Amino acid sequence: MHQPPFKKSARQGVTAPIGFKAAGIHCGIKKAGLLDLALVVSEQSGPIAGVFTRNQIVAAPVILDRLHLRRGRGRAIIINSGNANACTGPAGMTTARRTARLVATLLRIPPHEVFVGSTGVIGRRLPFACIKAGVPKLIQQLGARGGLQAARAIMTTDLRPKHVALQGRIGKQMVTVGGMAKGSGMIHPNMATMLGYLTTDAAITRAALQQALTLAVDNSFNCISVDGDTSTNDTVLCLANGLAANRMISQGTSDFRRFVHLLTEACQTLALAICRDGEGVTKVVKIDVSGADTAHQADQIAKTVATSNLVKTALFGEDANWGRVMAAIGRAGVPVAPGRISIWFDGVLMVKHGVGLGSVAERRIAQVFKKKEFTIAIRVGTGRHRSHMWTTDLSYEYVRINASYRS
Amino acid sequence: MHQPPFKKSARQGVTAPIGFKAAGIHCGIKKAGLLDLALVVSEQSGPIAGVFTRNQIVAAPVILDRLHLRRGRGRAIIINSGNANACTGPAGMTTARRTARLVATLLRIPPHEVFVGSTGVIGRRLPFACIKAGVPKLIQQLGARGGLQAARAIMTTDLRPKHVALQGRIGKQMVTVGGMAKGSGMIHPNMATMLGYLTTDAAITRAALQQALTLAVDNSFNCISVDGDTSTNDTVLCLANGLAANRMISQGTSDFRRFVHLLTEACQTLALAICRDGEGVTKVVKIDVSGADTAHQADQIAKTVATSNLVKTALFGEDANWGRVMAAIGRAGVPVAPGRISIWFDGVLMVKHGVGLGSVAERRIAQVFKKKEFTIAIRVGTGRHRSHMWTTDLSYEYVRINASYRS
Repeated sequence: MHQPPFKKSARQGVTAPIGFKAAGIHCGIKKAGLLDLALVVSEQSGPIAGVFTRNQIVAAPVILDRLHLRRGRGRAIIINSGNANACTGPAGMTTARRTARLVATLLRIPPHEVFVGSTGVIGRRLPFACIKAGVPKLIQQLGARGGLQAARAIMTTDLRPKHVALQGRIGKQMVTVGGMAKGSGMIHPNMATMLGYLTTDAAITRAALQQALTLAVDNSFNCISVDGDTSTNDTVLCLANGLAANRMISQGTSDFRRFVHLLTEACQTLALAICRDGEGVTKVVKIDVSGADTAHQADQIAKTVATSNLVKTALFGEDANWGRVMAAIGRAGVPVAPGRISIWFDGVLMVKHGVGLGSVAERRIAQVFKKKEFTIAIRVGTGRHRSHMWTTDLSYEYVRINASYRS
Repeated sequence: MHQPPFKKSARQGVTAPIGFKAAGIHCGIKKAGLLDLALVVSEQSGPIAGVFTRNQIVAAPVILDRLHLRRGRGRAIIINSGNANACTGPAGMTTARRTARLVATLLRIPPHEVFVGSTGVIGRRLPFACIKAGVPKLIQQLGARGGLQAARAIMTTDLRPKHVALQGRIGKQMVTVGGMAKGSGMIHPNMATMLGYLTTDAAITRAALQQALTLAVDNSFNCISVDGDTSTNDTVLCLANGLAANRMISQGTSDFRRFVHLLTEACQTLALAICRDGEGVTKVVKIDVSGADTAHQADQIAKTVATSNLVKTALFGEDANWGRVMAAIGRAGVPVAPGRISIWFDGVLMVKHGVGLGSVAERRIAQVFKKKEFTIAIRVGTGRHRSHMWTTDLSYEYVRINASYRS
């Protein structure tokens, strides 16, 4: 059944759906004047879903959010940038809890409906005094057009704020998904230093919302790779307040599939914005693996090629060094038949059944390497499973930014 | 039982042991004048051992060497640089075979006693005409002092030739191990683009030689990591001609242990030379993991920290960002108890039971980060197993060299 495409909302980011307000201010965690504290609040509470880092060492806000998520409802999200509140021990947990409690008190809502996010340097005490002074000001500034300010306030090394607002009919009602994200530099599948906050006015059950978010994240944030590292703080939350007054969405219905589609498109928009904005990124390249024996094997190959420093430096240098793609496939840790592998660069066949096609093909793919965005298609040739991932180049800028992150 | 330490031999590299000659010339594979073809020949044939890449996509010379290794004896090794002869299909195999046959014919030895190595760009035809013209000249130049020239002829992006010559008494005789290696830029455990050739005048059984080489490589080449990539061509061979006239070394004897010690020390010297010479390397850092539940888990943690781009850029920037070390430990894919992890930087305790010790400790480790070589000691705190690995920083130079490798 054909569905009409989603369209952009007139309002921006997390404040695009009905009943959401947001703000972003400078509270003193970052250097002079830079926005470092964001708040998103819904008019009424609703189900909330979350996906978190798989790193075993997790920051205090992640521990707190996981606890609050058990209650399943949310109404406010407060995020600071400039300090990750990770590896800060019991003191860090206290700060996270106090932050949630402060917001809850001032908004007169239960503390477990407040979620907390942090991003920035690991291992430094998060100064609660700044937050304490900032929150009343933040609440005062909450506005239905605050989505963009909030998106700015969660940035660290990001060059641009990342936000999205998409809407489409679900059943008879117009449903909107808004979102903002922060990330660049440590981005990797399983959600490296990446914060993503989605808001929606859809009426949806908590179970359906969680399943929808898991599916959407798997097909968006988990498909990008600027770096091989995953962080202690990664979080994607989705808060739904039901104000669109659509028929309640539950799992397994056509409304559910439509909502998953909408949420996935929003997440993909944010994920690709992160890719394009990666630290020192000059190229965004899709690694498209087909013909693998299993989905896991396709994933492994896509991931190994996408995170190879040698592939990534070749992208930066516009050096059509397809041998490095072959070498990465060979060390992906899954069985391959070298004589069956074929590789295309934006449709130009360069490797056929494991053998390079020579200098004419090489000259043609050298042109492809000059593009800002292109696709490397790898046919493994032994099965029917696919996977894809977006990657970026490894540039001087990447090294420069990450070498001096804290100075 | 105390053993006297090994001492440096008066002669250099692969020609240090009795009865080995070598040479290195320019045959036309590389640009004007650069050495690109090396030959090592023993006066008499002897057992040969080999360890190869675990990449599933292997270059023609690796396929050929594995075949020849089944016969177990060797007398000559010919290596070209500038072209990897990988992903070149049946034509590449023919070139490798013809190279071995040519050397065998001119030296009047069986072809299976000739081993072939290649390193350089993947996927380009290796011009056999260059080799055909070069080999007679190479044989003419063979000399007992040719070890250094041979070491130069196997270089690609290496800044310096890498060679070693160590000797010590085994039983009543003086035994010498010589060696040369090539590598930088794609170096990773499991022997990324790394060629290593060891020669010895020890009398040793083939089985003992293979076991000794496997042990030595595990504790040297497999402990270094300049990059996360492993290549299609990696090879370490060890040829033993028996001319030291020592009592035949067999497995499980004290002579065997002594020989393993000697060979390991030689391999470690070469491995660290590769580390120090890595593309754009300004730091060499040992990652020392202790207190893990299993040896495998200790390995995984050491490897994950050693290959983290964020750790490596922090090393380059002399940014004491220990949080990135924590984050890497947490994503190593093995169970850890964050509250038990402690981390020292050259003896300075920075993280105690999962919590950072604050700004005084940070200022002290900031000094450590300024050193050219230091140790990051990680105590996992749950078991008794250890592992270590050497890593390097990720610098502008790394990106520059690898972005334009083929131009």
